[in-house]
Amino acid sequence: MAATEVKTIRWDGEAVVLIDQRKLPGVEQYVTCRTSPEVAEAISTMVVRGAPAIGVTAAYGMALACRAGEDLNAAADRLKAARPTAVNLAWAVDRMLAAGGDEATARAIHEEDIGFCDAIGRHGLETFPAQGGKALTHCNTGALATAGIGTALGMIRAAHQAGRLERVYADETRPWLQGARLTAWECVRDGIPVTLLADSAAATLLCSGVIDLVVVGADRIAGNGDAANKIGTYPLAVLAHRHHVPFYVAAPTSTLDMSLTHGDQIAIEQRPAHEVTHAGGQRIAPDGVDAFNPSFDVTPAELIAGIVTERGIARAPYAESLARLMG
Amino acid sequence: MAATEVKTIRWDGEAVVLIDQRKLPGVEQYVTCRTSPEVAEAISTMVVRGAPAIGVTAAYGMALACRAGEDLNAAADRLKAARPTAVNLAWAVDRMLAAGGDEATARAIHEEDIGFCDAIGRHGLETFPAQGGKALTHCNTGALATAGIGTALGMIRAAHQAGRLERVYADETRPWLQGARLTAWECVRDGIPVTLLADSAAATLLCSGVIDLVVVGADRIAGNGDAANKIGTYPLAVLAHRHHVPFYVAAPTSTLDMSLTHGDQIAIEQRPAHEVTHAGGQRIAPDGVDAFNPSFDVTPAELIAGIVTERGIARAPYAESLARLMG
Repeated sequence: MAATEVKTIRWDGEAVVLIDQRKLPGVEQYVTCRTSPEVAEAISTMVVRGAPAIGVTAAYGMALACRAGEDLNAAADRLKAARPTAVNLAWAVDRMLAAGGDEATARAIHEEDIGFCDAIGRHGLETFPAQGGKALTHCNTGALATAGIGTALGMIRAAHQAGRLERVYADETRPWLQGARLTAWECVRDGIPVTLLADSAAATLLCSGVIDLVVVGADRIAGNGDAANKIGTYPLAVLAHRHHVPFYVAAPTSTLDMSLTHGDQIAIEQRPAHEVTHAGGQRIAPDGVDAFNPSFDVTPAELIAGIVTERGIARAPYAESLARLMG
Repeated sequence: MAATEVKTIRWDGEAVVLIDQRKLPGVEQYVTCRTSPEVAEAISTMVVRGAPAIGVTAAYGMALACRAGEDLNAAADRLKAARPTAVNLAWAVDRMLAAGGDEATARAIHEEDIGFCDAIGRHGLETFPAQGGKALTHCNTGALATAGIGTALGMIRAAHQAGRLERVYADETRPWLQGARLTAWECVRDGIPVTLLADSAAATLLCSGVIDLVVVGADRIAGNGDAANKIGTYPLAVLAHRHHVPFYVAAPTSTLDMSLTHGDQIAIEQRPAHEVTHAGGQRIAPDGVDAFNPSFDVTPAELIAGIVTERGIARAPYAESLARLMG
């Protein structure tokens, strides 16, 4: 089984300890959240990010609220409002609400996520060539985005371990640079050969024929297979389609939102302008400029070759295959 | 006529004085090149960039070589090698070679470029709606990329002055951030409303229906209309096409390379890895990561609604319309 040494989320019995993802790769520092509001703050300020990781973190946030005797509904509302797009957050919080804030349930959610990642890695193996695979990915979907080896990057880890992956190409993923800062860091740490590129260079790579498959994560998948993921995923899917490169989405079934019939029903979080006017902590744009900064976009199901979940790979038509997986 | 106050290239009779585009928008500093090798160095290190601007600068580099009694062929080779993709550089250097390094010819090339920009702005007006236009652009193609008001940004300036443009949306243009650093700076300075976005957010904008047209520059255009331009242009053209937004290329005819029949014959410059591993002057990626950093990509003519030149707008089929313009 593919493994990683990265410790993204740790429950120490009284607090949740998070690696501060805003400071990687330069500084490896941990933030300890002892209260539910501190957990919500850590999620909204992106100390922790990645749909499955914020779900697990929020579960501990509910356990902390329960232990402190807080109103669980208020805690749930606060945690859900911290990031609106990823459905895993609401999924984990609602499950904790049903369990009355029980700490053992939070630990179960945490453990399950590790297993989901492993299963996604196993099911995803068949999407790679038998050897020498070259995969392109976007954002960070690895150990830093989950409690386990990751979703899309979990597939890549598993393929590398199985000798099927030669190299991963990582979009840097502006504005937050999850690819440059987090994916590259995880890959270097785990010995997976990685090449970094500006997001807009991915089209050249796809056009060149070097890439066997694109694999990305998701923050919310509608019942028809439309998938919201980090900004820049949709243009990548369009380019992959144009150049006949299969485009896979990897996510646990907790990312599915069967209450939505179409991707245009997914609320897209708008992030602050300073993420765009700054890079590497430095201001790059002049004063007086406006910014457009949606954090996610929606990839239509027609561009997706398969959705790799812990229960197997769903393929088009997704309304049927996803319902079957969930059933 | 649209105007700008930006002084990108100035000939003081003995030296060429360049605004240092590596330091904008934070610092407005000028570099004085007194010799031809200094000019070549300024071009290769991107003190000055933008296809027409490097052509004009190189012309002065030839005049400086002539004045110093240097071998003109050697000076020409050195200047042409400074940046391989933009054909305006070779065009200006060859013209100076034919003129024996004559300073008056360099000044004529400089003056002509100002006029070319004005004419592009005039011809381009018809591509904008009568009012309230919203244009998306990539990289910097303004006063900093030319001797005049610019090519694509020249069109935008002219449309703004004519009351036809409401707002320009500027891709930040990683890795060098020409959009964030240079286009936004020019627009703020000239009072053109500007919204900055990460390159990968352009697809969301195009999908939303808010954009009337995309307009970009070019570094070399093949005889069939295929156009090399800043990395990220090709995916933008694919997305514009998908969402039925007209995609225009603006360039003087000195950017046409009629010796090439197809865009795949255009040499694409690979730039150093540190442009990708750094942002805003800070290292963003861990040690041990490789980088893929092509500086340009090629947009196939089939995706281009028109090529706006100083002689008018060429439209498909380009082999005929461009030959007619050049004839």
